[in-house]
Amino acid sequence: MQIQLIGLTEIPLISKEDDLSRLILDAAQLQEVELENGDILVIAETVISKSEGNYIDLGSMQASNEALELAQKTGKDPQLVEAILQESQDIVRVGPDFIVSETNHGFICANAGIDESNVDEGLATPMPRDPDASANLIREKIESLTGKQVAIVISDTQGRPFREGAVGVAIGASGIRSLWNRQGEEDLYGRELQTTQIAVADELSAAASLLMGQANEGIPVVIIRGYPSFADLRDTETGAKSLIRPKKFDAFR
Amino acid sequence: MQIQLIGLTEIPLISKEDDLSRLILDAAQLQEVELENGDILVIAETVISKSEGNYIDLGSMQASNEALELAQKTGKDPQLVEAILQESQDIVRVGPDFIVSETNHGFICANAGIDESNVDEGLATPMPRDPDASANLIREKIESLTGKQVAIVISDTQGRPFREGAVGVAIGASGIRSLWNRQGEEDLYGRELQTTQIAVADELSAAASLLMGQANEGIPVVIIRGYPSFADLRDTETGAKSLIRPKKFDAFR
Repeated sequence: MQIQLIGLTEIPLISKEDDLSRLILDAAQLQEVELENGDILVIAETVISKSEGNYIDLGSMQASNEALELAQKTGKDPQLVEAILQESQDIVRVGPDFIVSETNHGFICANAGIDESNVDEGLATPMPRDPDASANLIREKIESLTGKQVAIVISDTQGRPFREGAVGVAIGASGIRSLWNRQGEEDLYGRELQTTQIAVADELSAAASLLMGQANEGIPVVIIRGYPSFADLRDTETGAKSLIRPKKFDAFR
Repeated sequence: MQIQLIGLTEIPLISKEDDLSRLILDAAQLQEVELENGDILVIAETVISKSEGNYIDLGSMQASNEALELAQKTGKDPQLVEAILQESQDIVRVGPDFIVSETNHGFICANAGIDESNVDEGLATPMPRDPDASANLIREKIESLTGKQVAIVISDTQGRPFREGAVGVAIGASGIRSLWNRQGEEDLYGRELQTTQIAVADELSAAASLLMGQANEGIPVVIIRGYPSFADLRDTETGAKSLIRPKKFDAFR
């Protein structure tokens, strides 16, 4: 039983007019990789935002009083803090050098997911406006261009409580269920499983992150081939939003 | 740039006298897989505990007053709660159906990592006593049997705050650094990276979990082949303990 992770090394720097689906297929072709049924494409969120022309011009941000206060508390740039506030619906934790907030989509992460890497000086990329919708559009486009049934996962690299280091997580998905509910299944001894929900889309993102890295390798797209549960988890309706734990069920908010 | 995940399907049910390193090599051979330099073996913690004869006999547990109280609060079995208390140095959060604690090793997770799956009725497996040491022993044994340089990651499946579903995480490691510090490296535009620490061992565990599943597939070991940073991250000293964020730096404790 095998899975292959194939990093696409030939994706150019993305800008607004680019057709990301075509660039992905072109890059695959340059590596002589033909998409197959069941392929899962994990795409770094930055290239999604860039291809959607979704930039923040930090220099043009007018820091509100709230932003100025938070900037002082955290030592962060006031214009960046203003951008974080605009991308957030709630501030979850603040410390000497961090702001963890609930983004407008409901994800809880540092800096509202705003990324200052891999863009021109003075610019930043926010999270895609609606990552599940972006994933769905790309899936439909790639499926119609190739005739293959694929899934798209949009990934981000995020820190988390309790553990050092960041890991790849999913913020958008289409074509595969993000959360695998295994209630009722049995273990090797015929007992009901204890861990009944697996965050498959997060595990796919973490796996892809092994190739994407975070620096100048330039591998924003990874194909995951051979995932055994692809067919069982086929789902074009439920996105990665299902990974968000509702506040009232979260013991750590 | 490619990575292969190879699930070992021929590992038998493990018990105390078993030599896990040999069973892994035998299973690989049955699948005609020969270990190579740079292979990373991710092993499910349950088989480590079993091979070390490390079981909890829940029926023999004497529930203390603290355990009885916590059992009432959480609706959990008092003997299981007693076992959780014995495996923990601190209780972090308690709710109607969960206990999140800091294990004696320092990991923060539900039920102190005690697993009631895939063992005989009435028994449970705790986390390995010293997962980094276990990983180190297995690495040395496999390296001496094969003459190849490999790494071992011991994985668990854990829930986390803010996000639904569990994911594979690392609780032990040897032969590869768990945390990749990328401070000073630059992005595509020559700017310093924002995310400077990547929890590589957690990403390896999450990737392996895609094949391990949680149920009766019986894939407790996954070989990860072709990880590009293996040589850069070679390290036989620092284990997965480095993934534990010290309490004083954790905003969510």
